[in-house]
Amino acid sequence: MKVYIEPIGRLINEFSKLPGVGAKTAQRFAYKVINMSETEAKGFAEAIISAKKNVHYCKVCGNFSEGEICDVCKVRSSDTICVVKEPKDVIAIEKLNEYNGVYHVLHGTISPLDGIGPDDINIKGLLARIAEAGGSVKEVIMATNPDVEGEATAMYITNLIKPLGIKVSRLAHGLPIGTDLEYADEVSLARAFVDRKTL
Amino acid sequence: MKVYIEPIGRLINEFSKLPGVGAKTAQRFAYKVINMSETEAKGFAEAIISAKKNVHYCKVCGNFSEGEICDVCKVRSSDTICVVKEPKDVIAIEKLNEYNGVYHVLHGTISPLDGIGPDDINIKGLLARIAEAGGSVKEVIMATNPDVEGEATAMYITNLIKPLGIKVSRLAHGLPIGTDLEYADEVSLARAFVDRKTL
Repeated sequence: MKVYIEPIGRLINEFSKLPGVGAKTAQRFAYKVINMSETEAKGFAEAIISAKKNVHYCKVCGNFSEGEICDVCKVRSSDTICVVKEPKDVIAIEKLNEYNGVYHVLHGTISPLDGIGPDDINIKGLLARIAEAGGSVKEVIMATNPDVEGEATAMYITNLIKPLGIKVSRLAHGLPIGTDLEYADEVSLARAFVDRKTL
Repeated sequence: MKVYIEPIGRLINEFSKLPGVGAKTAQRFAYKVINMSETEAKGFAEAIISAKKNVHYCKVCGNFSEGEICDVCKVRSSDTICVVKEPKDVIAIEKLNEYNGVYHVLHGTISPLDGIGPDDINIKGLLARIAEAGGSVKEVIMATNPDVEGEATAMYITNLIKPLGIKVSRLAHGLPIGTDLEYADEVSLARAFVDRKTL
């Protein structure tokens, strides 16, 4: 006989699809749902449907948005554009409350090994935005990840934008705050030397 | 401005209710749902609703069941009854493919500190089953957890059933298979000495 009755087995299977969730964790999640009140379970299910249905991408910047244009693009000046790989990077930066400009989400990075070239990510959209703005864009901040693909993408875009006379910057690399020199990874430590600041 | 748009914030909030899921993990889960196809997301939501709606408790033993009586009670002989704390313990034992009798789920253990007395868990149901069976029950296996509440509950039920002339047994305690003596916890090691077997 089978160990799980069908509705439990099915729910465990669905939870297993979530990142980092194995059989045991999926089982715990399923038990939790079974012990929820009917209202709670319904709310959970509706939140999934609603997220799938109501989360779109902003027509201008590619960020998560409920409407055609996201809340950031609606209210902020587009003097400065921060280029990121994914919508979740926008959320990470927004949480800082440091940055006041707009974003541009590439939805990927150039990665020849995975067959992703410059035309497969939203670089054209960025160039179109800059052209449409007619000289009002003052700075483009490259905030792609500090890995091989992120660096390559940043370089590629920089080479396209710099000739337009727009300032292009890259997030600083170096030692993370709070680390011990002894335990810092070698690449970051080396970068911290190269990019050292005059005091 | 808020960091998350409403449908994402809501979904993250729902995922945070799952056991062991913090804000960061809930966020990862939410991104995963947003990247699912519409069909996948719908299937996920339906599995939650279905589990809540179609998982009931067996009228006889208290195990998870789709119908009034669970698959175990339907087909197995009730000579031997294995008493467990929760329905998930039934699943843990069923996975072994070792046990062929029926179960009785207490839905809790006696815990005076939490205000849970013998009348708050399903002990009456067990006694009624034994009485109804009219002497056909040969053995009751106490498979509550090896902790204070589990031991107390096992003792309490044993004292009620033993006078009826039914064999009552308890799962063996001792060293888990595969451990090093050096690293075994003291209580288990002590129990392994007390309950040592003649070879």
